[in-house]
Amino acid sequence: MTSFPRAADLALVPLELEATDNGINGRFELEMRLCRPDGGLFGGTAIAASTTCMEAATNAPAVWITTQYVSTARVGGVIELDTRIVARGKRINQLQVTGHVGGELMFTSVGSTALPREGGIEGQYQAMPTVAGPDNAADFFPGPPQLRGDSNFFGAAEFRSVELAEDEKRTKGSFVLWARVSGQPATPAIIGYLADMSPTAVARGAGKMGGGTSLDNSMRFGPDTQSEWVLMEMHGHLAVGGYGHSSIHIWSPDGVLLGYGGQTSNIRHIFDEADMEKALAEMRQRMGTSE
Amino acid sequence: MTSFPRAADLALVPLELEATDNGINGRFELEMRLCRPDGGLFGGTAIAASTTCMEAATNAPAVWITTQYVSTARVGGVIELDTRIVARGKRINQLQVTGHVGGELMFTSVGSTALPREGGIEGQYQAMPTVAGPDNAADFFPGPPQLRGDSNFFGAAEFRSVELAEDEKRTKGSFVLWARVSGQPATPAIIGYLADMSPTAVARGAGKMGGGTSLDNSMRFGPDTQSEWVLMEMHGHLAVGGYGHSSIHIWSPDGVLLGYGGQTSNIRHIFDEADMEKALAEMRQRMGTSE
Repeated sequence: MTSFPRAADLALVPLELEATDNGINGRFELEMRLCRPDGGLFGGTAIAASTTCMEAATNAPAVWITTQYVSTARVGGVIELDTRIVARGKRINQLQVTGHVGGELMFTSVGSTALPREGGIEGQYQAMPTVAGPDNAADFFPGPPQLRGDSNFFGAAEFRSVELAEDEKRTKGSFVLWARVSGQPATPAIIGYLADMSPTAVARGAGKMGGGTSLDNSMRFGPDTQSEWVLMEMHGHLAVGGYGHSSIHIWSPDGVLLGYGGQTSNIRHIFDEADMEKALAEMRQRMGTSE
Repeated sequence: MTSFPRAADLALVPLELEATDNGINGRFELEMRLCRPDGGLFGGTAIAASTTCMEAATNAPAVWITTQYVSTARVGGVIELDTRIVARGKRINQLQVTGHVGGELMFTSVGSTALPREGGIEGQYQAMPTVAGPDNAADFFPGPPQLRGDSNFFGAAEFRSVELAEDEKRTKGSFVLWARVSGQPATPAIIGYLADMSPTAVARGAGKMGGGTSLDNSMRFGPDTQSEWVLMEMHGHLAVGGYGHSSIHIWSPDGVLLGYGGQTSNIRHIFDEADMEKALAEMRQRMGTSE
């Protein structure tokens, strides 16, 4: 039996947890490795910490979670997570998590944890695309090359890029990466952390580079895995009025569908590859402005 | 300019709305046409009412919403929706909606509304599958035939069934319907209402009939449409321990991607078509039990 919280999740986000009457409280100090390049809370950190709290509060694995990004905590801040069980069934729990810094709301998560039901339906209704394995894939940095090596988000995770064959592209803008948090299995929390990539997937849909700000992240989880590497198959579906929607499939190296999700983002800055220097300067200037 | 609340949405769910300091309050009496066959609140009604409240509170169109189903309101109950704007930006608003009956929590929604940004990214990165139009599609009833004609959910909406060509099936269990609320354009709220079908899509993935109970519904919205009919392209992705995950694409008849979503459900009763009578009797017996 898995025990909760999972050690891998606490290695990623070092939560101090304390049981309450109807859930659990968590807190952690926001380190740069859990931030975006500008020192703001990376959305993936919020969904990961929320998932860990939901599982710890109920001693059961996460089934799905949606995290709504409300405001941006800054590096060095102490994030407090209040996790409440709003419905407790024989097997299924419905939970809500709010993340605050000094009383100000940073994010809200809603989701379920659930114990498996004996004889319950099990199945996978689609196959993984055929791609090169992580050992044969190109190292990839998911941001402007000038920021590589900073001690931010991109330092806690590793990415390698692969291409889909033409007949396996579900959308024009498919964007496929191997990803891992080195040394840790891809738990639901870690999958949520790695999968927070919608803006890039939408930009790819438009044949561009760049990105923007996630408004939310929604993940649905399949079977547990011991694998570190997962394949993130991302698709930008559409954009309207400056806002883009994308989806993600998470695959284990041996083809098990480990998760599935959707995300919406405010696509604030996209650009052609040739204009990267200019775009980077603009992005630095804009960071931190609200819209 | 669209004005909010949209008339089509109030025709579906007759909300009384009252502005508050930081949002809006809504209330409606739960009629049988907005219920499941057993007289419980249909999940689609909850996401539709939440979407309408979010738009009315901010005078802006919904971009995405996730509704978490916590408890089941019963026909005749008065549902009160408390809608709070938790972040208000120049264009983007983050909102939370809770639905109560007599002080007891029934559902929680989180989501965003947003005004389009001039010059913001616009695009659609995949094409609609080729299927027969609604006039050439078979009438479809999304439940046991014995329940047809009851004055429940299935009376407020119309469905017609079409098949995907083999090379356009994204998953084994694709399940494709034309759907409409007759006389109304497919607004975001109406799309959310129609799209609450995950359990059936997952059962189809397993080659079965039947369904279960939705735990949530998450929808992301594209451009506005004046079309009544929409094509709902649904896919069951995977099931584990009795819980299933599915996704949905919503298309206009002329191929515009109007929305995209994901949903998780507790698949409690699936069966082979030949066992429908027995399964129906069991389902009636089980309805209303919690798990």
